[in-house]
Amino acid sequence: MSTVAETSRATEPAILLRQDDGGVAILTLNRPAARNALSMALMGELIAGLRAIGDDLSIKAVVIAGAGPAFCAGHDLKELRANPARAFMREVFARCSELMLEIQRIPQPVIARVHGIATAAGCQLVATCDLAVAEAGARFATPGVNIGLFCSTPMVALSRAVGRKAAMEMLLTGETIDAERAVAIGLVNRAVPAAELDASVAALARKIGAKSRHVVALGKAAFYRQIDLDTASAYAYASEVMTRNMMAADAAEGIDAFLAKREPRWRGS
Amino acid sequence: MSTVAETSRATEPAILLRQDDGGVAILTLNRPAARNALSMALMGELIAGLRAIGDDLSIKAVVIAGAGPAFCAGHDLKELRANPARAFMREVFARCSELMLEIQRIPQPVIARVHGIATAAGCQLVATCDLAVAEAGARFATPGVNIGLFCSTPMVALSRAVGRKAAMEMLLTGETIDAERAVAIGLVNRAVPAAELDASVAALARKIGAKSRHVVALGKAAFYRQIDLDTASAYAYASEVMTRNMMAADAAEGIDAFLAKREPRWRGS
Amino acid sequence: MSTVAETSRATEPAILLRQDDGGVAILTLNRPAARNALSMALMGELIAGLRAIGDDLSIKAVVIAGAGPAFCAGHDLKELRANPARAFMREVFARCSELMLEIQRIPQPVIARVHGIATAAGCQLVATCDLAVAEAGARFATPGVNIGLFCSTPMVALSRAVGRKAAMEMLLTGETIDAERAVAIGLVNRAVPAAELDASVAALARKIGAKSRHVVALGKAAFYRQIDLDTASAYAYASEVMTRNMMAADAAEGIDAFLAKREPRWRGS
Repeated sequence: MSTVAETSRATEPAILLRQDDGGVAILTLNRPAARNALSMALMGELIAGLRAIGDDLSIKAVVIAGAGPAFCAGHDLKELRANPARAFMREVFARCSELMLEIQRIPQPVIARVHGIATAAGCQLVATCDLAVAEAGARFATPGVNIGLFCSTPMVALSRAVGRKAAMEMLLTGETIDAERAVAIGLVNRAVPAAELDASVAALARKIGAKSRHVVALGKAAFYRQIDLDTASAYAYASEVMTRNMMAADAAEGIDAFLAKREPRWRGS
Repeated sequence: MSTVAETSRATEPAILLRQDDGGVAILTLNRPAARNALSMALMGELIAGLRAIGDDLSIKAVVIAGAGPAFCAGHDLKELRANPARAFMREVFARCSELMLEIQRIPQPVIARVHGIATAAGCQLVATCDLAVAEAGARFATPGVNIGLFCSTPMVALSRAVGRKAAMEMLLTGETIDAERAVAIGLVNRAVPAAELDASVAALARKIGAKSRHVVALGKAAFYRQIDLDTASAYAYASEVMTRNMMAADAAEGIDAFLAKREPRWRGS
Repeated sequence: MSTVAETSRATEPAILLRQDDGGVAILTLNRPAARNALSMALMGELIAGLRAIGDDLSIKAVVIAGAGPAFCAGHDLKELRANPARAFMREVFARCSELMLEIQRIPQPVIARVHGIATAAGCQLVATCDLAVAEAGARFATPGVNIGLFCSTPMVALSRAVGRKAAMEMLLTGETIDAERAVAIGLVNRAVPAAELDASVAALARKIGAKSRHVVALGKAAFYRQIDLDTASAYAYASEVMTRNMMAADAAEGIDAFLAKREPRWRGS
């Protein structure tokens, strides 16, 4: 593993790790003692790490994981209380929103690998990632209301991933749901035994890695662009995307390979 | 129980009852012989009752329930046929929409306590409430199409609570679904045995009642404000809400209590 | 069966069949050797067929079915590769989008009768139809990414029918889901044994056929109009629709019949 942040001092463990394996970049939140709380520094490194990956043509899929017993417990409450000025708060939530938007902006699909707990902004991370796989024992919550800080930014991602009644219950009660319920409401794609979590995530990432990078990037960008449009506008936009896609070398190659019943050789363009 | 409406004559049973218990206001539709049909008068009392609760600092959660064998059978068809003028129709549906918007506008979360049937505007009530708990035998339908009056206003709430295919089936066939299906499609949060319905609703209301009123109000308002925005705008808005929330006394108290592992003492501000 | 297209030569089998039965029009995609791929000609006939049905007062519900082993395998890849000019591509996806919008525009509800596979634009057809019934062995996929052509237009329909995580998984992996999963995520209304598929679809169509044509048309149009509005605007619009509906003869008849406990006699107005 290597650290993303050049600013990390060699004498301190890096708070974000990056490990590349066969076209898949695994970003590991590495503040296990703080249950990977999203301090300003960690959010900054995640944004920088995602941007670097976005520009890295060797990477075709991204996994966000957490070191230690938890995936991510949300914002760093100690940091928040130590810096009570409005300007700092504004910076924290602006950076958090920037992080979430960046996950959806980079060309590669991002998979949340969820174990232990994913709470508050940690649950938001799960809701925001393009895909999510959880171990069967994982638990999810937006418990901010319990400490007087309603999960309003997590709500943006949560209420776009799951139905309103399910989102409202999590937000208003602050209660924890288990992985089975998370699957049922659509917060994660699937839950697997803990022993199979890494293999399941790796298989999913490799599957995506076998596609044309160019085509995946075009499709992911189109997804988030069209979802906020009315249906007719979405079709007008998506039709243009399809037309551009058809003019790409990888579409010609893919269709020819399919018709000839052979494997495609992607050019990434 | 006391009546909400000052206009109800003492000699007639009140059509809306309000009972307060430990910070929870229970509004009971009380037209059991008419299966709690939403006459103009009852909708007027519900709106007034909700507004009064909205201004009542002692109330932290609201339950809407129905007296008699049914939760609510929708609009009052006899009243509709007795007053066939366009101006009256317009008033009926404007008032109904006002009622639904008021449920989402008041600061306290509103829980539907559903037993028997919830049909047409009664099903809309369930879809509109922030949360809903049903007894296992409860049934739901938008059967207006069967009597030549498509459930177009219930559709607004229904199609925002559940998926399109499920909503369309209910609207086009007018058929009844059971509580299990209502849970599966996200129309209600859960179904419980009839004997446990009151306890389940009370537990949910009390759970919400234990939070900071101020913080819950801020979160509920933010939910309905952000849900109709595109993602980036929703984040810009929600980040401001979080910042305002962090400046609240209850956030400071809640976080301090959490870090000190003690119970918070909410000030409601 | 008769053919929809006047342009089909008598010596060739028609690519779209129409069979009317008791107010239900069944449109059967009839290119079984090509797994009912949506060639320009077939999309053109479908649009023309739907428009003719839209103007046909004898038809109260529509079924889209596929001849041979598959429901529909999407676009006609051979045709796409044989005509690589940008102008042709644009025409293909514009026509496809027009087809999907037409399904939602015609006054009668449209039911997808799904057997075998429904892939790419075939899956889009299922997602677009107002209702969908599948045989238990049916499979669904948006596999364009596998051949370098991301299912961007199918995505418009898919991401409006099912949750984001489920849609993203289908789009990014190109993998097939079974009918049970399709029900769970809301892509189809139900799955039935293959032997019961026709009966199940016919029962659903007949049920809708028993309603007032006028009222169903008004409700279907309102559904797609309100779904892209914010909640308050949707209520303002739907309240006007309800008022207009109440002024219709079929509403008066339907309510009177209901109150008198007799069957309504629809006038279709």
